Amino acid sequence: MHRFYAPEIASRLVLPEDESHHCVKVMRMQEGDMIEVVDGKGTLYTCRITMAHPKRCAIEVAASEVQRPHWGQSLTLAVAPTKHLDRMEWMVEKCVEMGVDRIVPLLCRNSERTTLKVERLERVAVAAMKQSLKCTLPVIDPLTPLHHVVENTQADVRLVAYCDAALPRQLRKSLPQCFAVGRDTVMLIGPEGDFAPDEVEHLMAAGYAPVTLGESRLRTETAAIMALAMCHTLIQANNDSSSTL
Amino acid sequence: MHRFYAPEIASRLVLPEDESHHCVKVMRMQEGDMIEVVDGKGTLYTCRITMAHPKRCAIEVAASEVQRPHWGQSLTLAVAPTKHLDRMEWMVEKCVEMGVDRIVPLLCRNSERTTLKVERLERVAVAAMKQSLKCTLPVIDPLTPLHHVVENTQADVRLVAYCDAALPRQLRKSLPQCFAVGRDTVMLIGPEGDFAPDEVEHLMAAGYAPVTLGESRLRTETAAIMALAMCHTLIQANNDSSSTL
Repeated sequence: MHRFYAPEIASRLVLPEDESHHCVKVMRMQEGDMIEVVDGKGTLYTCRITMAHPKRCAIEVAASEVQRPHWGQSLTLAVAPTKHLDRMEWMVEKCVEMGVDRIVPLLCRNSERTTLKVERLERVAVAAMKQSLKCTLPVIDPLTPLHHVVENTQADVRLVAYCDAALPRQLRKSLPQCFAVGRDTVMLIGPEGDFAPDEVEHLMAAGYAPVTLGESRLRTETAAIMALAMCHTLIQANNDSSSTL
Repeated sequence: MHRFYAPEIASRLVLPEDESHHCVKVMRMQEGDMIEVVDGKGTLYTCRITMAHPKRCAIEVAASEVQRPHWGQSLTLAVAPTKHLDRMEWMVEKCVEMGVDRIVPLLCRNSERTTLKVERLERVAVAAMKQSLKCTLPVIDPLTPLHHVVENTQADVRLVAYCDAALPRQLRKSLPQCFAVGRDTVMLIGPEGDFAPDEVEHLMAAGYAPVTLGESRLRTETAAIMALAMCHTLIQANNDSSSTL
């Protein structure tokens, strides 16, 4: 069944204009056809088209089901945006496919970008949510200064991917050593020029653990994907061992 | 120090034409400047420029060092190419950054592409090898029929990402359950339309274990990245636990 996005469906039984166009003009769906609609807040609706209008496609709800994210803990990535926006876009796409709750574009000293329009990233996120059959749209924040992230983070587990070889060896742990299944986690990924030394000091004072993602030097967007994939691998491995007990 | 690629350096102390151009014209390096050169076969050379010729930059070797891949086992990804080549290109980039030994574009029943020029993928791989400070260039095979991969695979551990819910529950394991640190591994990733049932039968008869990569439905190129990231996470977690013993 085709899937559409209607954030206001709980109060308004009409698809938004772009989704109406896609449904009626592109997919050529008609009155009486069944579609799936997600609200981006965790609910999947099975709907019947009651009026196949190309701008305001009306629907009625046949059934609804709450589908919580399968990973059972909040995962936030705060990532310094790359110079080329297409790298950010595919990072958002891949993170949404794998599963993430929030993406915070991070403004820090060495950020390669100091302005960012999030509308395009949001469109990518919506498409990836639908494509990967999820019902919850991750939050994508506007470009946010590092100190603001530090002051407002609620997460239990605070990690910063920081690869400075000068950091004392006992402080350099791997992400698998620091990650905790079931606990809300925020992961900071710095820009190509890395975090500045005083930024790292500030982060460590605020309880952020510096972690490495392995031996390879990764681009910013690859580091974000790798960090998130690592979390999901550890959650999966934990689920596996729980289910065999 | 800037890094260049010269696959023939062991027999010819000259950078290839494109690397000479980049070194002399773009980076404006001069006679006497020091550069790093990798041969793509695992050796890093520290070199001095002896003649800054824009097409045939001559070098002499000051030092050399063999740097084996840090993951200690062969990792092969066999992936059905996507319709849009840019998705394959970034998949190659990300896999090389994370660390992979061989990428086999896979021709199977439902492949979205039945022809593929690997030259562009090879160029992406070279750039990613240099950027991520590796010395070994992964092999990128031409488009290869599935049965040929099955007949010629030497790997101990053979996994196929296959998500058919109809597969008996006891046969559906997760990648972390099937992966083995230290053993050469091949992972097959099917096309958007998945492997055909008789292809899966053939694979299972040849010792391929069907694995899932988690609860999310992933695009082909995301599945490839996820599978590889999972392997590196498990290798990292294993290294961590070894080093604390």
